[in-house]
Amino acid sequence: MQLTILGSGNAAGVPVYGCNCPACARARQDSAYRRRACSAFLETETDNLLLDAGLPDLDERFPAGTLQAILLTHYHMDHVQGLFRLRWGVHEPIPVISPNDAKGADDLYKHPGIFDFTHRAQAFVPLQIGGFSITPIKLYHSRPALGYYLRYGERSIAYLTDTVGLPEVSCEFLAAQEIDLLVIDASEPPRQTPPRNHNDLDLALAIHTLIRPHQTLLTHIGHELDNYLQEHPHALPADVRPAYDGLTIEL
Amino acid sequence: MQLTILGSGNAAGVPVYGCNCPACARARQDSAYRRRACSAFLETETDNLLLDAGLPDLDERFPAGTLQAILLTHYHMDHVQGLFRLRWGVHEPIPVISPNDAKGADDLYKHPGIFDFTHRAQAFVPLQIGGFSITPIKLYHSRPALGYYLRYGERSIAYLTDTVGLPEVSCEFLAAQEIDLLVIDASEPPRQTPPRNHNDLDLALAIHTLIRPHQTLLTHIGHELDNYLQEHPHALPADVRPAYDGLTIEL
Ligand SMILES: [Mn+2]
Ligand SMILES: [Mn+2]
Ligand SMILES: [Mn+2]
Ligand SMILES: [Mn+2]
Ligand SMILES: [Zn+2]
Ligand SMILES: [Zn+2]
Repeated sequence: MQLTILGSGNAAGVPVYGCNCPACARARQDSAYRRRACSAFLETETDNLLLDAGLPDLDERFPAGTLQAILLTHYHMDHVQGLFRLRWGVHEPIPVISPNDAKGADDLYKHPGIFDFTHRAQAFVPLQIGGFSITPIKLYHSRPALGYYLRYGERSIAYLTDTVGLPEVSCEFLAAQEIDLLVIDASEPPRQTPPRNHNDLDLALAIHTLIRPHQTLLTHIGHELDNYLQEHPHALPADVRPAYDGLTIEL
Repeated sequence: MQLTILGSGNAAGVPVYGCNCPACARARQDSAYRRRACSAFLETETDNLLLDAGLPDLDERFPAGTLQAILLTHYHMDHVQGLFRLRWGVHEPIPVISPNDAKGADDLYKHPGIFDFTHRAQAFVPLQIGGFSITPIKLYHSRPALGYYLRYGERSIAYLTDTVGLPEVSCEFLAAQEIDLLVIDASEPPRQTPPRNHNDLDLALAIHTLIRPHQTLLTHIGHELDNYLQEHPHALPADVRPAYDGLTIEL
């Protein structure tokens, strides 16, 4: 299977509006350094899944008929914003699998349009979409949020954003799996005070060490982590690297 | 003053996701026919106002320091969506003038970031922003919504979206004003049944006739109105025309 990082940024994105720090200045000069709303696309010869839907141009990236299902980690706006215009499309219902969040985002439940939000995922209750075997993973975040452990044939990915740390039950589950690729929230550089709602780099690396995937991508990255990584070029172990928008990984 | 139509589309936009009608096919082929989230930019030599904020790329259109204030007609997502990422910017507070809507949109009030949503407009209570004299206008819509009558020196604009018809008090107020330009919701072609939440073309033209502006632009246009206007090339009087994205009018 092939994973494409569509967006690797936090809710502010990079560049941050009005910010002139080195990371934001670089992203404004060279769009290769931009970080858009955190999301990814997973595809095989026969199946595909969109992981989160915060990008504004999903209609151009995924013309009608090309999206099999959408997996939402949670209903924060940076993860669902792209659905608001698309929902008024002309299309068969597109299944959206999401955590059991009573409110959703704004009026998405009230006016779902072409999206079917009735598929609620529960932590550790496996589900199947085409050839994908998916286990929702419990996370710690400021509203109901799920990570996903996805298997296709022999290959597997753990996609874990947005989270601050990882519940013990999730660590135990994931440590017992073979994981080819971990994609993990690393929103901030190492903090002196405990991070809230999102991993700092230390927490992300601790999860990497606990879970022992073959390789790890950092995502949901904010401008301050970009600056930190510029200043600390040896901060990451060899099997960990920051994601970037458009990065494709074959597994 | 100069008005630029940034977006002239309804909540679905044109092209509609998955739609292959002539209007949508044309817009997919030639981006000049696209209709983005309904919004406009009003500027003079010294002042400016953004009218609604549904576009996803406001940061690129309006770099930090260039926006004086934002006037919101209401808190439907197609009119505010562009604020969610920008709010996490590095910037002095940007005043947002909006109707008195207790809920706002999603978590904008809870996490306003760089935006100041405390400026609540009330129908017919005038306000001043720089050289702009602004009178909020009562509208009929599915949630609290205001139009705006804007004067700058001798020139004036009435910007009225989203609305279905116009309350009598608003008709009377506007009919008594000199109006250089009316920008009016015309979401749909003429309907047999009474339109809900938005003007059809008949209602928009009736308001044009009542208010007697020097010229009128139709906005918040859906693909069906585009098709209707293609099929009925003489449907509009000489002083009424459909807006298009990027249209600039000097007043
Ligand atoms: Mn997020
Ligand atoms: Mn979140
Ligand atoms: Mn609207
Ligand atoms: Mn509306
Ligand atoms: Zn920055
Ligand atoms: Zn169409």
